[in-house]
Formats: sequence, C-alpha cells, structure tokens
Amino acid sequence: MERVYNFSAGPAAIAQSVLERARDELVCYPGRGMSVMEMSHRSSMYIEIFDETKALLRQLMHIPDTYEILFLQGGATLQFSAVPLNLTKAGRADYVDSGNFAHLAAQEAMRYTQVRVVASSREDNYDHVPTEFAWNADADYAYITTNNTIYGTRYTSIPDTGAVPLVADASSNILSQPLDITRFGVLFAGAQKNIGPAGLCIVVLRKDLAGFENPLCPKLMSWALQIKNDSMLNTPNTYGIYMAKLGFEWLRDLGGVEAIYEINQRKAALLYDFLDNSRLFKPTARPECRSLMNVTFVTGDKDLDAAFVKYAAERGLVNLKGHRSVGGMRASIYNAMPQAGVEKLVQVMKAFEKENA
Amino acid sequence: MERVYNFSAGPAAIAQSVLERARDELVCYPGRGMSVMEMSHRSSMYIEIFDETKALLRQLMHIPDTYEILFLQGGATLQFSAVPLNLTKAGRADYVDSGNFAHLAAQEAMRYTQVRVVASSREDNYDHVPTEFAWNADADYAYITTNNTIYGTRYTSIPDTGAVPLVADASSNILSQPLDITRFGVLFAGAQKNIGPAGLCIVVLRKDLAGFENPLCPKLMSWALQIKNDSMLNTPNTYGIYMAKLGFEWLRDLGGVEAIYEINQRKAALLYDFLDNSRLFKPTARPECRSLMNVTFVTGDKDLDAAFVKYAAERGLVNLKGHRSVGGMRASIYNAMPQAGVEKLVQVMKAFEKENA
Repeated sequence: MERVYNFSAGPAAIAQSVLERARDELVCYPGRGMSVMEMSHRSSMYIEIFDETKALLRQLMHIPDTYEILFLQGGATLQFSAVPLNLTKAGRADYVDSGNFAHLAAQEAMRYTQVRVVASSREDNYDHVPTEFAWNADADYAYITTNNTIYGTRYTSIPDTGAVPLVADASSNILSQPLDITRFGVLFAGAQKNIGPAGLCIVVLRKDLAGFENPLCPKLMSWALQIKNDSMLNTPNTYGIYMAKLGFEWLRDLGGVEAIYEINQRKAALLYDFLDNSRLFKPTARPECRSLMNVTFVTGDKDLDAAFVKYAAERGLVNLKGHRSVGGMRASIYNAMPQAGVEKLVQVMKAFEKENA
Repeated sequence: MERVYNFSAGPAAIAQSVLERARDELVCYPGRGMSVMEMSHRSSMYIEIFDETKALLRQLMHIPDTYEILFLQGGATLQFSAVPLNLTKAGRADYVDSGNFAHLAAQEAMRYTQVRVVASSREDNYDHVPTEFAWNADADYAYITTNNTIYGTRYTSIPDTGAVPLVADASSNILSQPLDITRFGVLFAGAQKNIGPAGLCIVVLRKDLAGFENPLCPKLMSWALQIKNDSMLNTPNTYGIYMAKLGFEWLRDLGGVEAIYEINQRKAALLYDFLDNSRLFKPTARPECRSLMNVTFVTGDKDLDAAFVKYAAERGLVNLKGHRSVGGMRASIYNAMPQAGVEKLVQVMKAFEKENA
C-alpha cells in the first residue's frame, strides 16, 4: 500500500526518510549487534545516542548552558502536574487560558497552587490567543501555551512577564520556528507532534529554577533529581529518544529551525491563501494569530464537512476531521508534512469546492 | 554485523522474529498507509491494535474481568509513588525489603504513608527473599517484589496476606511463569525486561481497589482516571504498546506462559547445574529462591570477573557484568533469550574455566 498524507494532530506524520532509517537499523544497530530497543540505558553505546540527541536539540534550538534538557515520560500532561509541583514557592501562579490544553493545565495546577487566570479567550471558543494580560509580579511563574492544537492559533510574539519565569507548553509548535529560549524559564513539549513517536516529553529549563519541589512531588517528577541523573533516574524511553535523534538529524540536514520556518510559512500560506479566497471553506482562527502547524476550517454545514473529510480520505489525505469542540476540519501540517501534501490538499479542496459550492 | 547474545538486565533482548516483524511494518503498517508511530491514538486503526494487545495479555495471564489492565508511562518507578498515592486509606502499609528496587519502593512510599518493613534480607546483601513475615491486618496493602533483578532471587510461592491486598512489582519475571493473578490486588511491571522496549509500564489491578487517590495524586497517576479513560487520559506510548503486542503474539504462538515456563526452567537449570559443579564460578543466590530470569555468579576474584566479562564479550556474549552492589556477573535470561544463547554461555564459561582454574 502507498503511504498516505497524514494530517493527524498527534501522534502525527514522521518524515519518510526518518522512518526508513529506523527500519534499516531496527534489528541490528550498525556495528552493535543489537537493536536500539535492546540496549541497556547505562551502556556506552546507548549513552552515545543519548548525548548526541541532547547535543542536536541544543544546537537546533540554540540552548545555552544555563539551561538543562530533560527527556521524560508521561507526555505534556504529566508536566501539567510537574510545573506546580516543582515551581511553587509563594503559592500563586498566573495562567493564560488560550485553549483546551491550557485550560487543563490550569485546572491541574489549582490542586497545588493558587491559579489566577490573567487572560482568556474561552468565551470566544478560543478563536484567538489573548494578548492583553493582567500579570502579577508576585507569581511563582506565568504559564502560556505557545500553539493551540485544537483551535489552530499561536503566539506570534512571546509575552513579556518581566522577572516572573515564563513556563510554556510548546507541544504543537516546538522546532517549527525560531524561538528565543532565554525568554522562557521552562519550555516543555510532548514529542508526538513535531519530534517523534508518543511516550516522550522534552523539558528545557533554566537550571536555577530546579530544586524547589513540593515535599509530595513524586520522585520521578522532580526536575532537580532528573537533572542530577541526566534524565536517567529510571530507565527512560530509550527508543523514543533514538527516534527523536533521527528527527533532529533530519531537521539539521534540512538547514535547521530557521530553514524549516521558511518552509512552514510557505506551506501554511498555501492553505490560508486558498481558504481566504474560497467560496466554500472558511478559516476559523483569527488572522493575526493563525497557527503554522494546525490549520482549522469549516464549510458551515456539518454534513458537508463530513462529506469533505470522506472525499479527502478517498484521495489519500487522512485525519482531516476537526476536534469535536470546534467541528469542521483541521489540517495539521507539522515539520514532517511535505509541501507536496499541502499542495495536494489544496487541489482536493478546489475539486470538492467545484463540485459542491 | 551478526547479532550478539545480549544478557542485559533491562532494557533487554527482544526475540529476533519480533524485531523483524517490527522492521517489516515500520514504514507502512499493512493496509494502513502509515507507520504505527504516526497513528492517532484515537483512530480506529490504532484502537484495534490497543484492544488486541490488552486481550492478548488477558489471555496469556488468565486475567479475569474483575481486573483492569493499564498501559502507562513512567516505568515501575512511577508506580513506586502511584501505589501509596492510590491505595492509602488508613495510612499504613507493609513492605518486604528483598532487594534494591523493593527498598526504593519502600523509601518512596514513606513520603505518603507509614511504612512497616515486615521482612528484610538487606543485612544478607539480599542473597535470598525473606519468607517469614510480620504482616499487619490493618495495613492498606502489603508490598513485595516477585523477582529481584540485581540479586537473582525470586519468590517461588506467593506469600499469603489474607484480606490485605497484595501489591507486587513483577518487572523482571512477569510472563516468565504461571502466576495466579487473583492472589494479587495490584501487579505492575516495567516493559523493558520481559515485554518489549522501555517506556511502558503495565499495571494489572483489581477494579475495586481504584478510586481512593490521595487528593494530591497527579491526575495522570490516578488509576481510577486511567481505568475510566482506558489508559488514554493522554497519549500513551503507542509504539511501545504495539511492540508489546508483537511480543505477546510471539509468546502465544510459542504456547503461552505455561510453555515458556518449561523453557525457562530448562535454560536456568543449564546454568545453575554448571555453576553448582564449577571449580571457578560460584552462584550467589541461595538455591531455594534462585531466579529463573537473572542468574548471578562470581569467581571470587574481581580481576578474574572482569577478565571473564571481556572474554565472553569477545565471543559475542555481552552485558554479563553484574550490578555494582553484588559485583561479579549476571546473566539475564528473560523469555527472549534463546536456549542456544545459554548453551553458548555455558560453553564459554567452561572454556574460560579450563584456562583459568
């Protein structure tokens, strides 16, 4: 069977050349006589892979030595708990409610600290990211979601929180555009959108922020202990980290984050330009904060939406159904989605429009 | 390069036919046009894989409907915290200290409940599992480790804790021998020894034990919430679960747990029989509780131990170095280690003995 174009929001498409390399090395990693899956996480052959993965991410994101990189389990969701469990001193935190995952993160944090929602677009069904904030100078941290997967919105510039450390969930747009990491105290991302397979969460944090855990913080969730053990307090997701390495190498060879940003802008523009001029499809996110990764749109008619999703799937374009809270369609076009996939999507939308508008 | 025989304690050897199937399906899962790594965890094509994995484990372990099966992240170590966070009612728990991981589990539990160590072999450097216990009838739960990876010991019969639910870490011998799951309240296991790649933890629990979380239990660690969401409170380790499925199919085709138990006894006997009669190598675990999965032995001379580990590696038998707390050698011979690997190890030990004894 031919490979399809997979517009899934996550787990999501992985570059074909990355998958092919994983396949070629699966049974026997070159020169090692075993699969990466079979390597002890303490063995020098695995540590080599691990260190290289970390160095590649540091290089791609220009992460200075004052920041540590952790490869953890539990996805972004476990960090929703880990953030307040690791950062609560005064017992107050500022949250921006810009989407479903931001909302869930704030709800989880309420169990450990006083959460103040300093801006929200919830009443507009999250069709934009709030840009006016009532930040509090006494907050332990301020929390944002850099890109909202479900609603197709993103921050085009990073809010200024002064001396209060900014914590960001960047699961759905990490590595898609240049980002000044020094503007953040902590930035984390589940791997399954723009990095590799699910089951891995990357946490980049300023070293001085670790070491203030709540006494009831589970050991494995302590950032300080994980830093001390170089993410190996217990056995990490060794194969997921290896897959991330292959993805990072692919991105480096493409020219890095700066190069993929150009490509991502071009890909998104193809879709948004078509949507802005379509007689049938309408984009749902406000223009000033449109995501480059998740493009949301509707026809305005539920049956027609469903008919389009089916029509596209029959043409090899799958997982275009939008999240139930927005309805309509969503095309997730992460780094690994080739421009040819987006071009084919526009073609198919045009054909469907001709038949139905 | 030829594949080696990998005696690693975990991550550990995976059956070659399982790896070959994973390789063949890696880029494009049959009939699906994408890799398993790229499938949305909510898609029907992935749910099919997930449900089949669960059904296979239920079949292999004869798990009745009164028990739920969870596929979680964070390894056994996250369960060291989850156990007291989910099971504490009265605030008292009984722990058996039979090895390093049992000790770590008890230490973590002390942060959430009153831990009473009801038996310990710590003073004998864990060369056996304790079999006399001072169980308390008022305990919320009683905790054991069924097999001690580092020390090469195991329980040959399951302790009777009466009405107190028995919780067991079975990371290093799950699926290696028949086990009456109804003797346990909760049984959990990290995948990286006898199931598949690291990054997955399987929890089998009696349904009536869920729903009593500590109010500060991180959401993702709540067994009740994970049961309600069928392990998909957030994106699980989708590829790790698929690899577990391939492993379970391999085990089923071999004849199941009952058949592998015969094989495992034969494999272990080959090694222990040689060790009991060797002029050079001595087994370290007491005979009555020897592990079928981890066989520990020494020469009594550190330099000679190191020389043997090197000698064996040069002959394609790798990761035989023992844990630093025991020294010497450890041959981990999990389900996936073929009998031919154990036979070759005995041959190489004989040759080394001839040259050095």
